[in-house]
Order: sequence, then structure tokens, then C-alpha cells
Amino acid sequence: MNQDKKNIEDVGEFGFIRSIMNDCLRSGGDVIQAIGDDCAVIGPYGGKVLLITTDLLIEDVHFMMGKIAPVHLGEKAVAVNLSDIAAMGGKPRHLFVSLAVPSHMAMGVLRSLYDGMKEICRRYRVNLLGGDTSSSPRGLFINVTVVGEAAKDEVLYRKGASPGDHICVTGTLGDSAVGLKLLKGELSAPRKLRQVFIDAQSRPAPQLKKAGLIAQSRLATSMIDISDGLVSDLDHICGASQVGARIFRERLPLSREMRTLCRTKRIDPYSFAISGGEDYQLLFTVPERHVGELNSLFRKKRIPVPVDIGEITAVAGIACVWPDGSESEIREKGFDHFRPS
Amino acid sequence: MNQDKKNIEDVGEFGFIRSIMNDCLRSGGDVIQAIGDDCAVIGPYGGKVLLITTDLLIEDVHFMMGKIAPVHLGEKAVAVNLSDIAAMGGKPRHLFVSLAVPSHMAMGVLRSLYDGMKEICRRYRVNLLGGDTSSSPRGLFINVTVVGEAAKDEVLYRKGASPGDHICVTGTLGDSAVGLKLLKGELSAPRKLRQVFIDAQSRPAPQLKKAGLIAQSRLATSMIDISDGLVSDLDHICGASQVGARIFRERLPLSREMRTLCRTKRIDPYSFAISGGEDYQLLFTVPERHVGELNSLFRKKRIPVPVDIGEITAVAGIACVWPDGSESEIREKGFDHFRPS
Repeated sequence: MNQDKKNIEDVGEFGFIRSIMNDCLRSGGDVIQAIGDDCAVIGPYGGKVLLITTDLLIEDVHFMMGKIAPVHLGEKAVAVNLSDIAAMGGKPRHLFVSLAVPSHMAMGVLRSLYDGMKEICRRYRVNLLGGDTSSSPRGLFINVTVVGEAAKDEVLYRKGASPGDHICVTGTLGDSAVGLKLLKGELSAPRKLRQVFIDAQSRPAPQLKKAGLIAQSRLATSMIDISDGLVSDLDHICGASQVGARIFRERLPLSREMRTLCRTKRIDPYSFAISGGEDYQLLFTVPERHVGELNSLFRKKRIPVPVDIGEITAVAGIACVWPDGSESEIREKGFDHFRPS
Repeated sequence: MNQDKKNIEDVGEFGFIRSIMNDCLRSGGDVIQAIGDDCAVIGPYGGKVLLITTDLLIEDVHFMMGKIAPVHLGEKAVAVNLSDIAAMGGKPRHLFVSLAVPSHMAMGVLRSLYDGMKEICRRYRVNLLGGDTSSSPRGLFINVTVVGEAAKDEVLYRKGASPGDHICVTGTLGDSAVGLKLLKGELSAPRKLRQVFIDAQSRPAPQLKKAGLIAQSRLATSMIDISDGLVSDLDHICGASQVGARIFRERLPLSREMRTLCRTKRIDPYSFAISGGEDYQLLFTVPERHVGELNSLFRKKRIPVPVDIGEITAVAGIACVWPDGSESEIREKGFDHFRPS
């Protein structure tokens, strides 16, 4: 079938991105990283480089207005972008917000949205420097662009992982995906547990402190943030580094709440940990000889040590090692905007 | 009435922007221009500064899918952002595109959209460095962010105009507004004329060459691009510079096609020139003693000389001087996304 006659849903989000990646550089002297990582990297300016990333949040795709407080929506719209800066080991500096707003939207809602954005900007010392505001015929659209900076030699890319490197994550996985299911009414949970998952979904924290520690140590070889889901994002590292990976299922870090809920409901927590998106934890690789040194840096700062969940392999594909030692290839991928889940 | 209980349409686009402008700077050491101009300006890096701007184009607000070829839509989405870089006297360098796409959209349409974006990037040597792609429940949304650069001392801001400065525009006004009326079926025109106006609306050209000449001359005192409409954008210069303006109605440059159409239809071409948006010509101010020098720079490069349409005054407000010498204040403003026109 002629590619042009297909719909975007036939090609998928990543197929679409691949189709437009060619022929994008026109004056590339100062372009260190173009399309294909969490941020573009330009410079250097002195010893520094600039990291630039942009992310779109759409009503009824990324959020439901009745299900998230506007102040948290504002925080999240910024947080997911700060997370992309974290994923490269950078420091976020400047923020730009484009908003398409239905005419009937109350100013109080918009004020709360901006209160949330400004609050998280205050927390991470980010300047709100501009944007664009338009009416929207249908639904709220938020596009955030963040400019960050990093020392040139400390930037971590998706490429760079080598066979034998350990694969680490900075925190528990799957809580956000459970939160989304709870918000959609596809799952229920006791009130106290429920709030933990919903906070994971609605108020993700960009792991900037941990990212800074990892980047400044210069011990890691690649890094990404987990937005699409562990396997999907690990697949991005593997693709960019031209390697494969093996992850040990029982090593995946689960929250106490996840264990409790899944035991009660008799559901598998690992499927959330493996495929659930929006955890915004960092996934990175580090050569075996540096694992101890990196962990002791975390201990020294009294920051929870990253969890070692597997290793990079020379063979393409992502394998899951089961508790009995058997291996199977993981075929389930993360979220694709144009593939029904 | 409590401000929070109002809708955004009660407050208007610019009222809304004013309401969120406070409390935006957190680590402002390298912020030269925050919210309030065509671009944010950060740096300097060496002698250069970076200019950053973002603009949103929304189906059924900024464009109608049946009324503009996808390739021209792609060009225009980029052009309006390049125009913001031009307005500050900069050189566009890097582009980021966020797209929200209905799932049923044909890949051919998207490919044409990107062909248009890449074509204009090629023309102005701009790199396409990243973006975000999402599904859209309703309609196509395009957000473009552009990073440009300029010599620190050559950047032109909205502020800077002084009483006595001449007000100049780089090209004819109102054609784009007529094109929009033709596309909407609110006006008709003979086929040959029609295409000129529709091109002005669908294929605006960022005035980067003229902007570079004006900026590098260091003779102008302020500049903006005409996106909202002459009076609205002149009002931005006046507001930022704390001055007023007087424009001479019969000096406003009109295209030959505009004169012909309006004579035939017995309509007033100046109302389009005064209030019509999306001309993307440059509006700038220059002290009287430098007008001759600037014009001769244009002549030397064989570029049409800017048209002198009026002067900056010490009194707030924008006055129109009629052919008989009488003056009246212009109250009609340009487009506000939340005010019905």
C-alpha cells in the first residue's frame, strides 16, 4: 500500500517520527544532538550546551479535566518536560507555554493551572519566559518547551550503552499506570492506597537531583526518562546504542502500595512495571566496574540507591528473565498515540 | 465581579497574558528579555544572544483544512515563527514542532505538511531538531518553537521608540485580511486578483532579509512584526515604549490588487490596512535624522525602501491623520482570540 494513503494510525507514532527524520539539518555546525533523544543539544557556548525539549498535553488524551486538579495539571505539564531535561543530565532554566483554551473556561481554572506551573518553576528555579495563547474550538491544549543547560561533557544520551553495562532505575515502577486505571474507573482501591497511585499519575516528580548526581559522576553510559513505559524506553536506549537488554523480572522495584493492592486484587504488578508509562523515573546504564562507585555517591548524599534491574546484551531485543531462570522476549511495548492499547 | 469567576473571553487574550506575567523570573541572571516581546532573549553567549519564540496554529481557529494546502500550512506554521525572530532582528537557527493529529489523518497530508516545513527551513537554513507527536481527539494542532540568534547589540525590542521617531513598514498592508475574507466566502474577487490575496494569507513570507538590514544598521529604535494588525502591533510598541503614535491614513502602503479590488467593490481598503492581521511585514521606528541613511542602505541592496507612515508622539493613544489634515483616535484594535470580531 502506498505509504501516503495510509492513515497515521496505520503507521504509528514512532513510524511517523522515522518518516520525517530525514533532511532536517540545514546549518548543523553547532547541533550536537538532533531528533532522536529526549532533548536536542546545541552549542557549545563556552563549556556549556543548551538542551531543548517540547511536550504536548491534550485534554482527553493526556488528561481528563474532571480527574486532575488544574494546579496539578499545571505542575505535570511542566514536570514531564523537566523530566526530559533530567534524562540528559541537565539543569532546566527557561520555560515557554503555548495554551489553546476553550472560550468558556473560567479564569479561576487558568489561574490555578498557572499557579501549578509557577510553583514547580519556583521549586526548580526555572524562568517562565513566554508562550502563545489562543482560543480552542474543543478542549484544552498545553504545549510546554523547556530550555536547559549542562556541561558539555556531562550530557547523557540514549546512545552510549555497551554490552555488559548494568541497567538501573531510580525508583519504583508502575504506580502511575495504576493511578491512571483508578482514574478511569477500570480498577478500584481502598481510599488510602488510591491516593498514592493517583499522586503518582497526577503529580510526577522530575528526578533532577538524581539526574545531576548521575551526570556529574560521569560514570553512566546512557540515560532516558521512563515516560512511555520501561520496555518502550529501554528499547529507545537499545535502538540508539545498537544493543539488546535482559531484565530480571523480580528485580523490578515495586512500591509497598503496589504489592499490597496487587496481592489483594490478585493481579500481576509486573505488567504495570514493565509496560506502564509516566513513571518519570530515570533509566540508565553503567559499566559493571562503576556500579559500586555510583551507588556510594548516592549513599553519601543519602539519596536512595538506584535499583539494578538487568544488563545490556550484544543481541537485539529485550529479554525478560523469570524467577526460574528461563528467558522470554518481551514483545509488549509502551504507549503509542496512534495504536489502540 | 471576582476575576476568577470570569471566563477567559471576558478578560481577553491580552488581559489574560497580563494576569500571568508576574512572578515568572526565578534565576534571571542571563534573561535579557522575558515575557512581553516577540521573542525571549537569553545570554549573552560570547557576543551573541539566543532568541526564542513559540506559536500555535489550530484548525478552525488559525486555518481551515479545506482552505489551505497542507504544504502551505506547513510553510505558514514555520513562517509566522520566523517572523517573530525577524521582528527582533535575529537569524532563525533551530525549529521544534509539536503536532496533535486526528487518528484518521492520511500520511500523505502529514508528509505534505512536513514538506512545507522542511522547504521553508531549507530556504532560511533552519534545522528541524525535535518535537512531540500526539493524537488529537478533534482537529489538527501545530505548535512551533524557533530558536534564533543575534549579535547582542543588534537586537531590536518593542521598547525603544521615542517621540519624533518615524514609523515605517516594510511592505503593503491588508492583503492577508482580504485573503481570509475570500477564503471564508465573505467577499468575492476575480480569479487572478483572488490568488494574490489568498497567497498573502496562506503563504506569508518572513521579512528576514529586511530585518537583518534594519538590525545591522543599528539605526532603528524599536521593531515588531505585524501579526495582529497594524494598530494592534503599533499599540504594542507604544505600550512598551510608553509613547503614542500618529499615522497618516493615505500613506499606508496598499498593493495594486488591493486598490483595484476595493475600487471595484466600493469598499475601503484602509480598514484592512489598519486592522487586518497576518501581514507579517515589519513595523519599526527610526529617529528622523537616520531615515535617509537607512533608506539608502535599502537602495544600495536594491531592496524596496520601507514606507514612512507616521511618527511617534509623546501622548498616549494612536491617532489617524485624515487626508484633510483632521485627526481622530483609532479605537479599532486587531484580533483578540477571546473577543468576537
